[in-house]
Amino acid sequence: MTGKEIEKLLKEIKEGTRTIEEAMEVLRTFPYTDLGFARIDHHREIRTGYPEIVYCAGKTNEQVREIFRVMIEKENNIMGTRANQEMYEAVKSISSEAVWFHEARIISVQKKKPEKPGGRIAVITAGTSDIPVAEEAAITAELLGNNVLRIYDAGVAGIHRLVDKLPDIRNCRVIIVIAGMEGALASVVGGLVDKPVIAVPTSVGYGASFGGISALLAMLTSCSSGVTVVNIDNGFGAGFSASMINRM
Amino acid sequence: MTGKEIEKLLKEIKEGTRTIEEAMEVLRTFPYTDLGFARIDHHREIRTGYPEIVYCAGKTNEQVREIFRVMIEKENNIMGTRANQEMYEAVKSISSEAVWFHEARIISVQKKKPEKPGGRIAVITAGTSDIPVAEEAAITAELLGNNVLRIYDAGVAGIHRLVDKLPDIRNCRVIIVIAGMEGALASVVGGLVDKPVIAVPTSVGYGASFGGISALLAMLTSCSSGVTVVNIDNGFGAGFSASMINRM
Amino acid sequence: MTGKEIEKLLKEIKEGTRTIEEAMEVLRTFPYTDLGFARIDHHREIRTGYPEIVYCAGKTNEQVREIFRVMIEKENNIMGTRANQEMYEAVKSISSEAVWFHEARIISVQKKKPEKPGGRIAVITAGTSDIPVAEEAAITAELLGNNVLRIYDAGVAGIHRLVDKLPDIRNCRVIIVIAGMEGALASVVGGLVDKPVIAVPTSVGYGASFGGISALLAMLTSCSSGVTVVNIDNGFGAGFSASMINRM
Amino acid sequence: MTGKEIEKLLKEIKEGTRTIEEAMEVLRTFPYTDLGFARIDHHREIRTGYPEIVYCAGKTNEQVREIFRVMIEKENNIMGTRANQEMYEAVKSISSEAVWFHEARIISVQKKKPEKPGGRIAVITAGTSDIPVAEEAAITAELLGNNVLRIYDAGVAGIHRLVDKLPDIRNCRVIIVIAGMEGALASVVGGLVDKPVIAVPTSVGYGASFGGISALLAMLTSCSSGVTVVNIDNGFGAGFSASMINRM
Amino acid sequence: MTGKEIEKLLKEIKEGTRTIEEAMEVLRTFPYTDLGFARIDHHREIRTGYPEIVYCAGKTNEQVREIFRVMIEKENNIMGTRANQEMYEAVKSISSEAVWFHEARIISVQKKKPEKPGGRIAVITAGTSDIPVAEEAAITAELLGNNVLRIYDAGVAGIHRLVDKLPDIRNCRVIIVIAGMEGALASVVGGLVDKPVIAVPTSVGYGASFGGISALLAMLTSCSSGVTVVNIDNGFGAGFSASMINRM
Amino acid sequence: MTGKEIEKLLKEIKEGTRTIEEAMEVLRTFPYTDLGFARIDHHREIRTGYPEIVYCAGKTNEQVREIFRVMIEKENNIMGTRANQEMYEAVKSISSEAVWFHEARIISVQKKKPEKPGGRIAVITAGTSDIPVAEEAAITAELLGNNVLRIYDAGVAGIHRLVDKLPDIRNCRVIIVIAGMEGALASVVGGLVDKPVIAVPTSVGYGASFGGISALLAMLTSCSSGVTVVNIDNGFGAGFSASMINRM
Amino acid sequence: MTGKEIEKLLKEIKEGTRTIEEAMEVLRTFPYTDLGFARIDHHREIRTGYPEIVYCAGKTNEQVREIFRVMIEKENNIMGTRANQEMYEAVKSISSEAVWFHEARIISVQKKKPEKPGGRIAVITAGTSDIPVAEEAAITAELLGNNVLRIYDAGVAGIHRLVDKLPDIRNCRVIIVIAGMEGALASVVGGLVDKPVIAVPTSVGYGASFGGISALLAMLTSCSSGVTVVNIDNGFGAGFSASMINRM
Amino acid sequence: MTGKEIEKLLKEIKEGTRTIEEAMEVLRTFPYTDLGFARIDHHREIRTGYPEIVYCAGKTNEQVREIFRVMIEKENNIMGTRANQEMYEAVKSISSEAVWFHEARIISVQKKKPEKPGGRIAVITAGTSDIPVAEEAAITAELLGNNVLRIYDAGVAGIHRLVDKLPDIRNCRVIIVIAGMEGALASVVGGLVDKPVIAVPTSVGYGASFGGISALLAMLTSCSSGVTVVNIDNGFGAGFSASMINRM
Repeated sequence: MTGKEIEKLLKEIKEGTRTIEEAMEVLRTFPYTDLGFARIDHHREIRTGYPEIVYCAGKTNEQVREIFRVMIEKENNIMGTRANQEMYEAVKSISSEAVWFHEARIISVQKKKPEKPGGRIAVITAGTSDIPVAEEAAITAELLGNNVLRIYDAGVAGIHRLVDKLPDIRNCRVIIVIAGMEGALASVVGGLVDKPVIAVPTSVGYGASFGGISALLAMLTSCSSGVTVVNIDNGFGAGFSASMINRM
Repeated sequence: MTGKEIEKLLKEIKEGTRTIEEAMEVLRTFPYTDLGFARIDHHREIRTGYPEIVYCAGKTNEQVREIFRVMIEKENNIMGTRANQEMYEAVKSISSEAVWFHEARIISVQKKKPEKPGGRIAVITAGTSDIPVAEEAAITAELLGNNVLRIYDAGVAGIHRLVDKLPDIRNCRVIIVIAGMEGALASVVGGLVDKPVIAVPTSVGYGASFGGISALLAMLTSCSSGVTVVNIDNGFGAGFSASMINRM
Repeated sequence: MTGKEIEKLLKEIKEGTRTIEEAMEVLRTFPYTDLGFARIDHHREIRTGYPEIVYCAGKTNEQVREIFRVMIEKENNIMGTRANQEMYEAVKSISSEAVWFHEARIISVQKKKPEKPGGRIAVITAGTSDIPVAEEAAITAELLGNNVLRIYDAGVAGIHRLVDKLPDIRNCRVIIVIAGMEGALASVVGGLVDKPVIAVPTSVGYGASFGGISALLAMLTSCSSGVTVVNIDNGFGAGFSASMINRM
Repeated sequence: MTGKEIEKLLKEIKEGTRTIEEAMEVLRTFPYTDLGFARIDHHREIRTGYPEIVYCAGKTNEQVREIFRVMIEKENNIMGTRANQEMYEAVKSISSEAVWFHEARIISVQKKKPEKPGGRIAVITAGTSDIPVAEEAAITAELLGNNVLRIYDAGVAGIHRLVDKLPDIRNCRVIIVIAGMEGALASVVGGLVDKPVIAVPTSVGYGASFGGISALLAMLTSCSSGVTVVNIDNGFGAGFSASMINRM
Repeated sequence: MTGKEIEKLLKEIKEGTRTIEEAMEVLRTFPYTDLGFARIDHHREIRTGYPEIVYCAGKTNEQVREIFRVMIEKENNIMGTRANQEMYEAVKSISSEAVWFHEARIISVQKKKPEKPGGRIAVITAGTSDIPVAEEAAITAELLGNNVLRIYDAGVAGIHRLVDKLPDIRNCRVIIVIAGMEGALASVVGGLVDKPVIAVPTSVGYGASFGGISALLAMLTSCSSGVTVVNIDNGFGAGFSASMINRM
Repeated sequence: MTGKEIEKLLKEIKEGTRTIEEAMEVLRTFPYTDLGFARIDHHREIRTGYPEIVYCAGKTNEQVREIFRVMIEKENNIMGTRANQEMYEAVKSISSEAVWFHEARIISVQKKKPEKPGGRIAVITAGTSDIPVAEEAAITAELLGNNVLRIYDAGVAGIHRLVDKLPDIRNCRVIIVIAGMEGALASVVGGLVDKPVIAVPTSVGYGASFGGISALLAMLTSCSSGVTVVNIDNGFGAGFSASMINRM
Repeated sequence: MTGKEIEKLLKEIKEGTRTIEEAMEVLRTFPYTDLGFARIDHHREIRTGYPEIVYCAGKTNEQVREIFRVMIEKENNIMGTRANQEMYEAVKSISSEAVWFHEARIISVQKKKPEKPGGRIAVITAGTSDIPVAEEAAITAELLGNNVLRIYDAGVAGIHRLVDKLPDIRNCRVIIVIAGMEGALASVVGGLVDKPVIAVPTSVGYGASFGGISALLAMLTSCSSGVTVVNIDNGFGAGFSASMINRM
Repeated sequence: MTGKEIEKLLKEIKEGTRTIEEAMEVLRTFPYTDLGFARIDHHREIRTGYPEIVYCAGKTNEQVREIFRVMIEKENNIMGTRANQEMYEAVKSISSEAVWFHEARIISVQKKKPEKPGGRIAVITAGTSDIPVAEEAAITAELLGNNVLRIYDAGVAGIHRLVDKLPDIRNCRVIIVIAGMEGALASVVGGLVDKPVIAVPTSVGYGASFGGISALLAMLTSCSSGVTVVNIDNGFGAGFSASMINRM
């Protein structure tokens, strides 16, 4: 039930072509969805270039292609995460505008340029194996319109590589820190920089890194203020939240 | 080594009272601390009214009192978290300005009013047992200068209580969601509101809530975009991060 | 916004005392709560004697008393779970009808007798230490109007005690099985009886029972069909679900 | 020892061809099995069309085929769960009536139509990746004679999709909610609908979803009353329990 | 239904005062319990001096006393485990024969001396903190009639203390090994002695001993053949199983 | 240092060709190994037909073949566990006596028949997927000379299949119970049979069976006395321990 | 069997008062202990002032006092860890030399001064709550003769406090790093200093620090080379290992 | 900023070509990295033959080759861990000096021979499956210049194999103990040898060894003093730490 339908319903009451009892029954049955939804949609419309997001993992190539087709028809920007190359090719077959970010595993179709917020988002990784997750975060942030500063392989075992870049990092408005194993980088960055830090544990590593649990726990228990955490390997979530904050 | 000391050192080189070799040795030995530290301090000074933060748990009453004494002498604002009433009384004995927030377990001494950012922070709890953690978040945010909207006992088992307040929540710039047990409230709020959500799992509950683990995992795996998570019961961390974001 | 308020709003439109635009704004702002809530309330009203439920743990005696006061004024039945004797006395001080179920930790104020469904609910425990959880389940079921068959201390180490009672158990419509330690009783009952079984793991036991985790896992992985599980020690949840099923 | 054998034994006592002592010895040795088993069988016979159930995982194709062959000869309905296509083809080779439900991984041979209970079972999923588990639940319920309402991809991140369908869901007698990741959907449905909810955590997701543990814990600690839980990915168990309840 | 009742039933058939149909109905209804139970009871009777066992933890002093009273009246031996001194005094008040084993937390009332098997059971602990669990095992084994060799504080950090006693240990028929922390003693004994080893992890220790989990896992994964394991702190279970084996 | 070498050393002292100081040095340096080892070997020699055991997993085919070659030359019986068919073929290529037990994953070379103890060992499984572990236990027990009673697929969901076989089970001297999922069978058998029960959790199952953890915990917390537990899937360990007990 | 007894035995052989067979039997029976033990004792004797160590937790005051009494009579140094003040007073009552280290929970009786190794051990903590564990490490190292550099409250959230002290830390031969919560300090120190680092996780903290598990995992998965880890809160173990290394 | 650049900066101040303010700004901006880094580099330079270490897992063959190329050009020794054969071949293609250690998964390019410390490092494994981890430790230690004593397959189930080698082990300066399953070997070695023991849990084993967790916990809770622990399967870390200690 769209805003238009509600307006029509109220008009019908006013015009007497519908009884109050009938109207109440209709309102009771669809009380929330469309009102609320419409408002969200409206918000999205005025934020030019903000993409719809499709989580592709666990979907068939056909399902991904059809979801993209519907959205492309609405002239929306679209971004498919956790995609693979076959999914990209399925989308490419219906839209020559589809772009494939291999490391980030993202398919993008961009109909309108998103607004650019002024600030910049830093994406820092502890190691080179964290780069795919970092690229998911960075590409997400970029597709949402943000400028991104990438600093990769700056883990605490060689802390000088991080300190080198501190002035640049301090000029960003939000910091995404991505690390596996002991995840100490989030605490170190949080202790050195006075900006919101979004920490992403990664599943890289072996033994007692337990697929990212050690990094996750370390980030959650960080003694540095201003650090919040997202799910293991959730580069998208970090990029999305960072973008929300950077746009404020 | 303070900024002044470095300046003195450089002058001595210029004046020839110190050789370059001696200076290099000095710089090598204290390369980072004071330079970096001074800069952070400087930043803090220009942000009027920003408090020093003392984590009181695990300290003796005497230790807490002495830390407060030193800071009070510097005319800084101070905020002691995870404190108890005895600690408060120890601080009160040296400063009549000390204020005690019982539920939040916070001691505050405020020398200067913090700057007020324009936006507001919502603090929402699922149940009444989550209120102490919520108060820690809310008082932290308020002592850092923010306006706070408190919405308590709005869990998903009675989702209408949340929906009632949606328009107010949507007017806030950051949302803190605090919930124990299954922690579903973070996902629900994240799905309804287009603002950064900081989720705080709480250790309330019994059985398979495992002291907050269930809520923590649920919040980390939230399907709603824009949700980041802090440690179990970490109301302070949520309030601090929310303040950082609200000030942007 | 109650059903009455909506009706009034629609009348105002019809009567021209309110514009469609104004009405849409009102509907947008309170879209869901009261509509949905009112309907739930209505359902509750026609089910005579169905109690309001208050989870008392983590509330102060005063909070519990005030919640009971408000509900007693509405002439509702009320049931407070996870209560303690002091809470009961606080309630007793405002209502002579308050009843205290010590083992079940339940306070009840019953204004109207609930309807009695025809069938019976069996509550079976493996050991004597499981009885408090069992009583929570049994009293809950009884306060919701059900007849309850209690069979306590019938664990699989002495399976003949269970088999003795099989004919009675088979005459019940729903079976609640309550066990700690290895929780095998749920599987055994599930294999012998062709009725819905609700299994409640308990935190009694020591060592590798890990506060109920062993029983919980055993019940979740039961090879017997028709077994569903609730939280550790959640006698209330089992009694509530069993009542829902028995009333069908 | 079948009912017939017992009858024969008692006759022999009556006719004096067997002493009481001999009879007692026989009864002592086979006290339970066949009596109990026979009764269960009898119950099953009068419930026309109720299938025998075979858990196929971990069995060879030959084992599956032979189990089906024996049952088909007894003119029973049969349902094989957790099967794969090769198993289906093995069964198909001996029975042209074999039907293959690909997504649900179920093989069915139906000799008689099951009785239809009046009510309907809702099967709701949070995401599209939950559909295979949902189909296992739905096909199980249907093969047991129930009508099923499927509502897929209605997770809390887009809660309006769920609210849209609430009136239909409220008309069902039992609700199965299937969700991975944070599993919040079970709590939300449990808070909105006054019917027994059977929650099925799924192993879809990544990172801190830990193969379904997060969803499992969230469902067990649901604050909504009336929610019971089955094993991770146990669509069959949910469908079976829902059918038991719907038939009451 | 006791053996006598069955005999009576069969007589009634023989005498024609009951029809075969009636008898079958009776047998169907109580098929298993008493027949099976009677046989177990009978076995117990002929094993002179074998005690009834009562798990006292989680029972009230009154419950413990009443259970003992009933059994004492039957002239059975009785053994109450996980008891406390108050429970002992309650039992003492009704039976002057009650004996209290403080470290083992066992109450014993012995009416007849148990038969003595020939062999001996060794009870070995790694440390002194393991002694209460060891005493529970040793007293259990002794009350069941066995001779026990106690070797305490012989952990692998001082392996010579163990090797000293090897000849005595090798002369025992069953070995109980009790250890907390890393539980390595079970593997070492299992590698040196060619007898069944029953390993009991204890909850003593701190940090990563996690209340006995480390010892439990170490014992379960012992590379020494012939080691089986019981629950953390389950001295009784080890003593009981060892006695079963020693009597063979 | 073999027994012979010690004897020689002592002779040299007696004959004066070696000083006491020299002898003490030698004894100090090789104090334990060979003395202890020799004794164990000696024990093994007098137990005719007792096999050497080789854990094959994690070894190369060549390593397995060479270990067998050395032992075959010593005319020992040998038994290789956790082997695969290629390993068997490598052994077969050097010994035509090699026998392959496919389900049990055991290679056997038997030079002498082991002594037969009088009693019998029961091996009972809950399901058909537990059979490979059961065969590992059964073949181990048989190669160690025991008679084995196999009862497969007798889980508690169909408890009559177990009760049917109770008289046979009660005639065995040791019972091995093998079960995955909730592992309840161990408790049920332990409650019905007055013999040592060795419980083997298996990793079959899905979801909350967590690769055998649920069964393991359930078996460790069994309320039935006389149950001890071995590692998940450790059929060999159960067969070996059962054989030790049966030989007593 | 002491070295003297062996010498006597060998003499008896030489003198013909004992046969070789008798001697072999004696050697077989006590093969290892005293020889090996004597050697260890001997080593200890020549290392002047090395203390015997008594783990006091879980012992009674009387047991602690008696163990000290025996050792004091042998003129050994003694060190009791995890002691409490009552234990200290029990020891004090028999030895006026007893010294009590309150924070470290250590009782010391020192008869001879230990040798001093040249190097120094650094003991660094992240926070003030880690100090008791740090003192256990530091006092242990000191009682074993080492010089200790204490640097407390130098966590990564204020990394400048650490960097200040780097030159001193780099002059130590072994570094002990003690931290709770996220334990990142071990990685940071390991990355900055080219010396063996022994990391001690502590159980301080709350929520997802899980009693030290997070710090433990972070330290185990440290990306900095040269970091090894001891048990949670095991200050003694770290001090002891550091001393071993420092003495090399 | 290298040492040279700092020197140049200071000269410019002295020469008046740069103001003190400018210099301070430069020092502020690059305060730490190069100063600290230079010193580390310098240390490394004077330790002839000490290799750079590259963790190869998670890098592409090209990345590995390029990192080696850069380092080879600097005439450094290089050691790549967790490499595979393809990576080796990529390195081989640019450097004929590359050596491949298959079991250890290490690529080495050695330009200068490392200094040899006097002592020796023992590497002991419990089983044959632990050998790859042991080789990683041993080759690491050797490439860092140490002599290594390998003792493989000496687990506690056959403790005589270990005791045989004790005199050799006691002559080493550091002991690395590598074991999976119950990991008891670390405690046994720690109890017998008075040297620093570095314990490496391995992920070999099955069931309750949980990928090395059991061994890890057992090693952390070892009752033997002087045992420290590294990550599961972290042979490199153990070899590196042992080398650090051996060089002291």
